Amino acid sequence: MTAQIIDGKKIAQDLKIKIAKEVKNLQEKHHITPAIAVILVGDDPASKVYVGAKERQAKEVGMNSLQINLADNISEIELLDKIKKLNSDPKIHAILVQLPLPKHINSDKVIETIDPNKDVDGFHLINVGKLTIGKIDEATIPCTAIGSLHLINEIEPDITGKNILVIGSSNIVGMPLSRLLMHKKATVTIANSKTRNLKFLCQNADIIISATGVANLVTADMVHENSIIIDVGINRITKKDGTTKLVGDVDFDGCYPKVKAITPVPGGVGPMTIAYLLQNCLYLCIKRL
Amino acid sequence: MTAQIIDGKKIAQDLKIKIAKEVKNLQEKHHITPAIAVILVGDDPASKVYVGAKERQAKEVGMNSLQINLADNISEIELLDKIKKLNSDPKIHAILVQLPLPKHINSDKVIETIDPNKDVDGFHLINVGKLTIGKIDEATIPCTAIGSLHLINEIEPDITGKNILVIGSSNIVGMPLSRLLMHKKATVTIANSKTRNLKFLCQNADIIISATGVANLVTADMVHENSIIIDVGINRITKKDGTTKLVGDVDFDGCYPKVKAITPVPGGVGPMTIAYLLQNCLYLCIKRL
Repeated sequence: MTAQIIDGKKIAQDLKIKIAKEVKNLQEKHHITPAIAVILVGDDPASKVYVGAKERQAKEVGMNSLQINLADNISEIELLDKIKKLNSDPKIHAILVQLPLPKHINSDKVIETIDPNKDVDGFHLINVGKLTIGKIDEATIPCTAIGSLHLINEIEPDITGKNILVIGSSNIVGMPLSRLLMHKKATVTIANSKTRNLKFLCQNADIIISATGVANLVTADMVHENSIIIDVGINRITKKDGTTKLVGDVDFDGCYPKVKAITPVPGGVGPMTIAYLLQNCLYLCIKRL
Repeated sequence: MTAQIIDGKKIAQDLKIKIAKEVKNLQEKHHITPAIAVILVGDDPASKVYVGAKERQAKEVGMNSLQINLADNISEIELLDKIKKLNSDPKIHAILVQLPLPKHINSDKVIETIDPNKDVDGFHLINVGKLTIGKIDEATIPCTAIGSLHLINEIEPDITGKNILVIGSSNIVGMPLSRLLMHKKATVTIANSKTRNLKFLCQNADIIISATGVANLVTADMVHENSIIIDVGINRITKKDGTTKLVGDVDFDGCYPKVKAITPVPGGVGPMTIAYLLQNCLYLCIKRL
């Protein structure tokens, strides 16, 4: 039996086609074009790549994208003012501040200044709170978390009663994803760097999600023929010949022959994150109608 | 070996002695007395008992307690106005609205109207969000959740890497307690009514917390000699002779001889809930200094 490779690139592409249709529909019926404002402070090369990809894909689905580049030495108060202006701009439906920010700026304050109804990342306390108490439909959900759930549902549409192991409890992925899975009535275990019996927990899980940033954390001896593996990690490792390579948290080559389904890195969760950014932007725009 | 019975009544009493000292200290040094306003809508007998106990114990530790009784048919807007007045009253540090409310009143709206800095129950979205993202020190934590953690720590001061099973994922207990345990680097599994393998999960847990309201859910065959059991359930059952009795979710008589430590019902988690209500009131008062 060969494992199914969960093709995040293809699934994200299908989702974006749906989003593009809805955007067109909104334009035709309501003369509104969803618009996202992306704020980039400084010129970190990795951040520039991310912001560029977000802008390009927003335009691909027919959305308006406003990129705002601010100097590295902008004051916190100037940045907050910029956000407040976007909050009150009726033509902007979604605001994203690319993280990390320079050290002299308090990221929490920045996130809390974004109007929760324009908070496309779902990081504002009000959105976090809504997700936590189960008001899923009223919250914006962090993109990587909801994108990972989408990939799980491609293989397992009903996760009621499934044993799911989430490795890593970050606020961006592990924590919101755990909450989504609980909402769907899965039995969820959240492991962290102090977990003693990771192999045992993996072996007893129907679905394993790893979001730690530790390469080769999940290996072939930990999985079984019914394992579904969602690999959220992105790690750059150096190969023997000195070149580098992107890998996830999971030993893909070792696990692939043994499991039911697995996401590749790259091409698994990654593409879903941006697709759900667009989905969230669409959702925030529709909510305003 | 005999199990240790975790004496919540005694532990709560000790905590209240500490709180009373701090209240006295605040009065002497800052001429401030922590004050809690408790709003009771209607005359549900159980709610009246709870509210009475809260008021009595607040006074016992030297706090001011303002009980506000409102008629069953009060309009939502009148109730919200009452809360807003308390929000802006500098002599009130903590506000509690006794739940459940009559059906014509939207409880969520009521909770969101309470100033997060006076939200003694920790139910406001901002407090839920802060707890979820790990800003524990800035949040008010729901009383039963933090009270349960206190009982665990009496037996196990360091829960790093411990396998903890939380049965029930309510917003009042299971969810916030899970988050607290994760924050302390425990490996947490959250089970619910659809969980397939509860016995297996119990057997593999160092600590079991049950908060479901299902009597006899955890039985002797599920536990082992190192199990620590925190029973949050309160269920009234009818005995063979027709009289009724309060029990938890755990078969206490069956489990007690087999485990390391266990909370009784009543006298376990229950007393901790009110003690932490007072602790939260004290915390909110100190925060304002």
